[in-house]
Amino acid sequence: MIAAAAQARLPSILRWTAILVPLAAVVGTASAFFLWALDAVTRLRFANPWLLFLLPVGGLLVGMIYQRVGKSAAGGNNLLIDEIHQPGAGVPRRMAPLILFGTLVTHLFGGSAGREGTAVQMGGSIAAAFARMLALDAASVRIVLMAGVAAGFGSIFGTPVAGAVFALEVLVVGRVQYDALIPCFFASLLADWTCRFWGIGHTHYQIELLPPGALPDPWLMGKVMLASAAFGLAALLFSTLSHRLADAFKTYVPRPELRPVVGGILVIALFFLAGTSDYLGLGVLAEHPDSITLPALFTSTGIPASAWAWKLLFTVITLSAGFKGGEVTPLFFIGAALGNALGTVLGAPVDLFAGIGFVAIFAGATNTPLASIFLGMELFGAENGLYIATACIIAYACSGSKGIYSAQRLPSSHN
Amino acid sequence: MIAAAAQARLPSILRWTAILVPLAAVVGTASAFFLWALDAVTRLRFANPWLLFLLPVGGLLVGMIYQRVGKSAAGGNNLLIDEIHQPGAGVPRRMAPLILFGTLVTHLFGGSAGREGTAVQMGGSIAAAFARMLALDAASVRIVLMAGVAAGFGSIFGTPVAGAVFALEVLVVGRVQYDALIPCFFASLLADWTCRFWGIGHTHYQIELLPPGALPDPWLMGKVMLASAAFGLAALLFSTLSHRLADAFKTYVPRPELRPVVGGILVIALFFLAGTSDYLGLGVLAEHPDSITLPALFTSTGIPASAWAWKLLFTVITLSAGFKGGEVTPLFFIGAALGNALGTVLGAPVDLFAGIGFVAIFAGATNTPLASIFLGMELFGAENGLYIATACIIAYACSGSKGIYSAQRLPSSHN
Repeated sequence: MIAAAAQARLPSILRWTAILVPLAAVVGTASAFFLWALDAVTRLRFANPWLLFLLPVGGLLVGMIYQRVGKSAAGGNNLLIDEIHQPGAGVPRRMAPLILFGTLVTHLFGGSAGREGTAVQMGGSIAAAFARMLALDAASVRIVLMAGVAAGFGSIFGTPVAGAVFALEVLVVGRVQYDALIPCFFASLLADWTCRFWGIGHTHYQIELLPPGALPDPWLMGKVMLASAAFGLAALLFSTLSHRLADAFKTYVPRPELRPVVGGILVIALFFLAGTSDYLGLGVLAEHPDSITLPALFTSTGIPASAWAWKLLFTVITLSAGFKGGEVTPLFFIGAALGNALGTVLGAPVDLFAGIGFVAIFAGATNTPLASIFLGMELFGAENGLYIATACIIAYACSGSKGIYSAQRLPSSHN
Repeated sequence: MIAAAAQARLPSILRWTAILVPLAAVVGTASAFFLWALDAVTRLRFANPWLLFLLPVGGLLVGMIYQRVGKSAAGGNNLLIDEIHQPGAGVPRRMAPLILFGTLVTHLFGGSAGREGTAVQMGGSIAAAFARMLALDAASVRIVLMAGVAAGFGSIFGTPVAGAVFALEVLVVGRVQYDALIPCFFASLLADWTCRFWGIGHTHYQIELLPPGALPDPWLMGKVMLASAAFGLAALLFSTLSHRLADAFKTYVPRPELRPVVGGILVIALFFLAGTSDYLGLGVLAEHPDSITLPALFTSTGIPASAWAWKLLFTVITLSAGFKGGEVTPLFFIGAALGNALGTVLGAPVDLFAGIGFVAIFAGATNTPLASIFLGMELFGAENGLYIATACIIAYACSGSKGIYSAQRLPSSHN
């Protein structure tokens, strides 16, 4: 019986392996190249700080290219979510080179943006190209697209489990349906391996481990819960401000290619207002030894309490104006900065609070609490899993059901 | 806006807190008492090995009590799943004392059974009693029942995140719907704390950590994948054999109270056949220094390769005959024993393979891959998360969609 069942499934397993292995290898390689290039353009900007003043010009370039040849690719992550729900005109092949170029320009000139949007869109676009080349049917296209998203997310952060669960969880608020669990997981795993094979490492964040078998600390848990409500509200603020500012740009700057120009000027103004370059770019590499960076938020205690708000403003303006890259790494920064500040105020460990802020604000802004818990465990270890889970769940609950992805569906039925 | 939203939600938050805190405290206390009593009856059996020969008498006792006063409580976990899907006659209060008594009798006389069924049924029954006392509406009853299941599972294994996800994931194959995520998580967390507060510890399993930043080992991953297919097939074997043997008992022993008598005699016969008492009871405590126990499966290399098959037979006979306790800890044992054997054959680390077998067979038999990954990370650390996730997903895929809970639903729609 078992032998017969295995034999019946063998063609399907071989077929999917033949599709997913090369797909994951290509997506992982694209992520590796992107991470390398992102590092290079960021160091170039550090060496030439005046590049920031060309941000409006870079914006014009990105805006014009998307305007002329972008077509549906401008839909970005939302287009991917839509196409997975309901196949339409398809995900264009050009999405991959466009988002790669747009993101590198954004970061070269100091826009405050992320990298997961790029990875996910490259993954989705490469997956769509595979699907067209192999003339897959609609059901298979859907699975391949999800696997591409998982591969992009898993490889860009080095978190394959979170990558797979993210791809399944981001589609509908409040539900994970895992008919595509296996392809998503293996695509994510192989893409992550491919990326590491190219010698690309990922930032390591250290949270002091709890002593094994330590009794739970209700007092600390109370502080975590309080802070997590704040992370959820910060996620809500980020989403709301992003949508409103994008609407405002559309209203007041009717020509799409000019929006990033205006956005670039606003970012430069904000830079003078803040008096620091710490909120430009990705926020992971340090321009100066005492720069506020994502890793520094786990160790330093002298960080201004307003850091999270500054980074939020820089990012919302950059992305709403049409610059590229995605929201997630800036969200990590905002959450970790808010966690750092709240940990200091509440007399709690700053590294733990930076870590829970990091994942909790992501849970709130993307409505993916389970992927966020996996992300936290993969990045910080399961020893703090209880605090990570508490933070993600409370932030998810406090952030409302509207996240940063407007294409995300609400569940249609309860059963 | 935020203040108004928070104010509107405050009564609901306070109401649920007032329900869930005492509920979790009671369920956690019940779990603590049960774990303590389980330990006591197991040691009593170790000191008086002849108690095994009274297993048929113990079986008659359990059978008669369930027959006389059990009513719907005999439905066990399946009744809980049914009542959460579609409220019927309700979960009876008597389920808690009955399952507690039945499980302790089973373990006192050496039946091979688990403890999660007991914890989950006590949790569900206590939750139903709370719901009746507070005259909750149907939608709230459903949430409270799920929270009771989560509290029972989370506190019995000391794994609160897995407890919450299990309660959400076990209902439907292939889907997690988390409208009850928050109550389930907090009930599980608080019940676990309560259980620890009473000084009840949980078994600690040690897997050698991978060196941080280690490159993935495709060769080891290949072995993990191969073994995981075997874990999935073992889960399928366990489920199939359980259902068929239960049917056979129903056919050939029409009087329900006599089934455990026959089952008890079969277990005694099996004990003579195996020539060891290692497969009786829970399998966690060691009767002799060289007993095969769940912790020993992580460290010893001299364990017979057939250990998993023996434990499977002992357990399937015990439970199909109507003894009480649940399947999960024996499943952990079977998976860890099979992992131990396969690790030895494949030249792979025995601790890692015991650990992945432990969670993977559970994932396959209960169709809860995400809860199983969380369980593995909570028990063994996230450093081995990739292997844990691979194992759970492959075992889930290889075990078919029929698990040990016949009340579990297949998803009605894909969207």
